[in-house]
Amino acid sequence: MTIKMQKKRVAIQGTRASFHEEAAFKFFGTDIETIECESFKKTCDVLKQKQADYVVMAIENSIAGSLLPNYTLLREYNFPIVGEVYLAIQLHLLALPGVKFEDIKYVTSHPIAIRQCSDFLDDFPQLQVIESSDTAACAKKIREENLIDTVAIANNLAAELYGLEVMERRIESNKKNYTRFLILTNKANETATYNKASLSFQVGNSVGSLAQVLNILSEHNINLSKIQSMPVLGKRNEYNFYVDIEWKNQPDYDAAIRKVLKHTVNFTIMGEYVKNDKV
Amino acid sequence: MTIKMQKKRVAIQGTRASFHEEAAFKFFGTDIETIECESFKKTCDVLKQKQADYVVMAIENSIAGSLLPNYTLLREYNFPIVGEVYLAIQLHLLALPGVKFEDIKYVTSHPIAIRQCSDFLDDFPQLQVIESSDTAACAKKIREENLIDTVAIANNLAAELYGLEVMERRIESNKKNYTRFLILTNKANETATYNKASLSFQVGNSVGSLAQVLNILSEHNINLSKIQSMPVLGKRNEYNFYVDIEWKNQPDYDAAIRKVLKHTVNFTIMGEYVKNDKV
Repeated sequence: MTIKMQKKRVAIQGTRASFHEEAAFKFFGTDIETIECESFKKTCDVLKQKQADYVVMAIENSIAGSLLPNYTLLREYNFPIVGEVYLAIQLHLLALPGVKFEDIKYVTSHPIAIRQCSDFLDDFPQLQVIESSDTAACAKKIREENLIDTVAIANNLAAELYGLEVMERRIESNKKNYTRFLILTNKANETATYNKASLSFQVGNSVGSLAQVLNILSEHNINLSKIQSMPVLGKRNEYNFYVDIEWKNQPDYDAAIRKVLKHTVNFTIMGEYVKNDKV
Repeated sequence: MTIKMQKKRVAIQGTRASFHEEAAFKFFGTDIETIECESFKKTCDVLKQKQADYVVMAIENSIAGSLLPNYTLLREYNFPIVGEVYLAIQLHLLALPGVKFEDIKYVTSHPIAIRQCSDFLDDFPQLQVIESSDTAACAKKIREENLIDTVAIANNLAAELYGLEVMERRIESNKKNYTRFLILTNKANETATYNKASLSFQVGNSVGSLAQVLNILSEHNINLSKIQSMPVLGKRNEYNFYVDIEWKNQPDYDAAIRKVLKHTVNFTIMGEYVKNDKV
């Protein structure tokens, strides 16, 4: 008797071979079932309805910053964060095999990817740029509609999946750009070996209230890897903080959280997981 | 002899009657010369070439968060921030006079404005949504091309300037959404009465280094109204902080800055100005 393991079902925003699928492969390996969703909200709905086991969700990019609407989704759906992935954003010019550069009329990609290739595109003003919602979808369209006058700006995975050739490699202006993705699921991590957490909380408006919280963290040797304030909508002078922290010794973390709770309100542990910041 | 005062020339991203012009009017009054620019970078170029006296630049939205690429522009061009404006984002459905709701086939606006009206649009699935780069430009197009089957989602100013009627008022889902704009110019504020500053700096990677800076601010009764960490591109574990602070007594500020300087590197005062957080 053979036991057939069910593949992990991972919901992503966008089309297969997008950066979201690349991030999913990096975290889970390639033996997964990718579930394409048209929006970030849809990925959460799919997870809630148990049609997926995990969501991979971009949360910040080193140039564009935090995707705050995704923080809002995290708070609305309350799925625990159980992991993170950092992905270098490497962008290539992809075309059907045999197409020559001088035959190209159109460049298609996501507006952010287009902006990240502005140095390259500035050198070729004759190319007409067409914006689209998804880098991988642009590559897919070239294959499906056999477009011999069009190139897509997308990743290597899209070249492989849709059978396109890399006409120009690494055309992104900033070679050190990366995106951080979170891994969400239905139930919290069972492992006890985590060393990183994402928190959100509010502090009073008095001078020094945030400093107090950071002092407690620092007294317990807890490192801050991200902090971001967000005004609370409709409440003047109230702030929500999103904070990522890292630690070496679990008892330090436990003690710090207990103390921090006395100085904060609406405290939420959005997830505890294993730090993974290799780009 | 009459002295003709030259109008202030204010560069904005986008078309006249956009939220950027509305913010400019709120800060300077309506007797200004608005200079339309196709990008945020262009507004900075225009200021640098002295074709404008000021730039009005969106820097954060209460839902979408900080516009980090604009922080990058601030650092590249190094223009001092000399003021701030908060603007409530109120979105209306605009049409040519006489057009009836049942005649509408298309809704045009900026993608972010469209998303902010999703509750309204969900009720009318028969309307086809068309994304465009600028709310005001959509209104302008309806007037110029006499589009009787199309409405724009835009502000009141666009209705007035382009002679459109408000068909539905305040269709934004979140009534408390606002955007904060910065006022930039060529030379720093001369006034000595400022009570707010925008700073950027880096701290060492040791645990507690940010807490140390916040403690100094708190000891001098300086309030933090924004904090945001950004990883330094290509430098592992180094962070840049963007911080806005407010104070009541100038000597407090002076003393705090002097002390903070000992605990930070790459410290920049991006601007000192008068706090203005009325939405």
